[in-house]
Amino acid sequence: MRGAVIHAPGDVRFEERGDPRILHPTDAVIRTVATCVCGSDLWSYRGVNAVEEPSPIGHEYVGVVEEVGGEVRQIRPGQFVVGSFFASDNTCPNCRNGYPSNCLHREPMQAEGCQSEYIRIPLADGTLVAAQDTPDEAHLPSLLACSDVMGTGWYAALAAQVQRGQTVAVVGDGAVGLCAVIAARELGADRIVAMSRHKSRQELATRFGATDIVTERGAEGVARIKEMTAGIGADAVLECVGTVESMQQALDSTRPGGGVGFVGVPHGVSIEGAELFSSHVAVRGGPAPVRTYPPELIGRVVSGRIDPGPVFDLTLPLEQVAEGYRAMDERRAIKTLLLP
Amino acid sequence: MRGAVIHAPGDVRFEERGDPRILHPTDAVIRTVATCVCGSDLWSYRGVNAVEEPSPIGHEYVGVVEEVGGEVRQIRPGQFVVGSFFASDNTCPNCRNGYPSNCLHREPMQAEGCQSEYIRIPLADGTLVAAQDTPDEAHLPSLLACSDVMGTGWYAALAAQVQRGQTVAVVGDGAVGLCAVIAARELGADRIVAMSRHKSRQELATRFGATDIVTERGAEGVARIKEMTAGIGADAVLECVGTVESMQQALDSTRPGGGVGFVGVPHGVSIEGAELFSSHVAVRGGPAPVRTYPPELIGRVVSGRIDPGPVFDLTLPLEQVAEGYRAMDERRAIKTLLLP
Repeated sequence: MRGAVIHAPGDVRFEERGDPRILHPTDAVIRTVATCVCGSDLWSYRGVNAVEEPSPIGHEYVGVVEEVGGEVRQIRPGQFVVGSFFASDNTCPNCRNGYPSNCLHREPMQAEGCQSEYIRIPLADGTLVAAQDTPDEAHLPSLLACSDVMGTGWYAALAAQVQRGQTVAVVGDGAVGLCAVIAARELGADRIVAMSRHKSRQELATRFGATDIVTERGAEGVARIKEMTAGIGADAVLECVGTVESMQQALDSTRPGGGVGFVGVPHGVSIEGAELFSSHVAVRGGPAPVRTYPPELIGRVVSGRIDPGPVFDLTLPLEQVAEGYRAMDERRAIKTLLLP
Repeated sequence: MRGAVIHAPGDVRFEERGDPRILHPTDAVIRTVATCVCGSDLWSYRGVNAVEEPSPIGHEYVGVVEEVGGEVRQIRPGQFVVGSFFASDNTCPNCRNGYPSNCLHREPMQAEGCQSEYIRIPLADGTLVAAQDTPDEAHLPSLLACSDVMGTGWYAALAAQVQRGQTVAVVGDGAVGLCAVIAARELGADRIVAMSRHKSRQELATRFGATDIVTERGAEGVARIKEMTAGIGADAVLECVGTVESMQQALDSTRPGGGVGFVGVPHGVSIEGAELFSSHVAVRGGPAPVRTYPPELIGRVVSGRIDPGPVFDLTLPLEQVAEGYRAMDERRAIKTLLLP
């Protein structure tokens, strides 16, 4: 089969790879129905993260089960499944505590290279969630979003402890930030401030439920949030970027005693203990336990209650994956959907 | 009247100061019934925090109201009151959100110098909580503890989101750490691990509800906690020291997705974003919103449900305040109670 391989920063190729096979009796192999490029893939594409050797890439996917190993009990060939970016057993203490992305036996799906025609899924029973039926094609993008960005936005809102009636600010207008707007709306936030300087993303944020747009960044952005909140800051702030500046902006925009949920993979970020102390702000982040949410999120997608699909504003055949990366790198696209 | 004044590190004197007076119509003046020395006072006493000029000191107190300003409505002369270490109006947005220690009009009681015979209390209606009746003398130490250490331990447990049935570790065996053990017990923790190397403090922790004692520190302490928790760490960790080492120990002892409540004033602490991210641990700290708890805590003290009083293992006449500092500095006492 063929799949994407990153050879060096800026150099993603669609090439022949071996067919994935069942390696362990808990594995499954799926035929990819849709996959996509993640903002975090760009860290390698831009050379921020090192690319030591040619490596398969991609970690978001929906598909149809082709084959399962001898110890797979719940997942069956023919099912339409949504996966998550870490394989997890769903039985270890961390999984039981609600953190499958910290599963004691987790395996990064990135290592499998999910921007490909077929994918080996380790720990299939724990990792995959089957949809009731084969979904309408119209729901495909939203279901694919549940395998990472929608679940990550959802976690950001839960980690920041968004409550009904609150004011929530979202730092970052990428696909995750936009999904975080949906999550804040679903959790009942009254006022949702999207911090964005890009017109098309502002429009999407508004369509997703943002009530206000703030275009300023850094100290000016913080000042705008405070103006909107009687001088104290937002109840909850969802940090969806991962830079030193965005994290500072998030912390400073939060009211005393509020919460920050941070899901942008931190690059060079450190939090001053004394500052955090004096702010009374709670901080929780991490790779989202995306496996926990699909049962709930799939229902909301299928019923039409949420529709994160439009974060994909570019759809390409999988073989044009390189162009998918370029478009996102050059900010011509928010997120690229790839169809094998 | 007379009160404690710190002149330089190691030099606390009991000397004549002016009588406190009503300066604003929202003030009260109380006659101190009991006061004490805080672990945080030792930061100045030991020269870690600079002492620029002779300054009144002390911020924990219970007393009887002597006089109130013209705008004080709820507090009346003759009432027995428990205060907190920040004066707060109890009406601003931060107070209403549950964080009076971040009141927009807060005033540090340390500036009033509460280790003294009388104390001016700014924002008296917001700051003071009156007991139903003049308490039994036997309850005096526990009520005094509610003005800081018991409330601070309570906040540590709430900030770490201690839940019924959980395993909780407490880093720090000072008065706050010991009170945090009580708080964890009251919130229903099943297993409470006190990290302490001092026999007398271990005994007190056990009396307060600790089920286990860990004497190791640093990486060895973390390893012990993990051994006790199927390898993953405690559900919640209460950090009651404030050093780089104690914070690291707290973070590393917490299971993925658990919570750290940190109430030791941080000195030189910074938290790596990438580490916090990969841990899924939630962190909340700060000067405890102690004003929020006395109504609840006073009831528990008076009914005999909690008895933090024994954290005071040395009682001296207020005029011997200097000896009270020395005893704590030399770790001959956990906490010194001072009676005018």
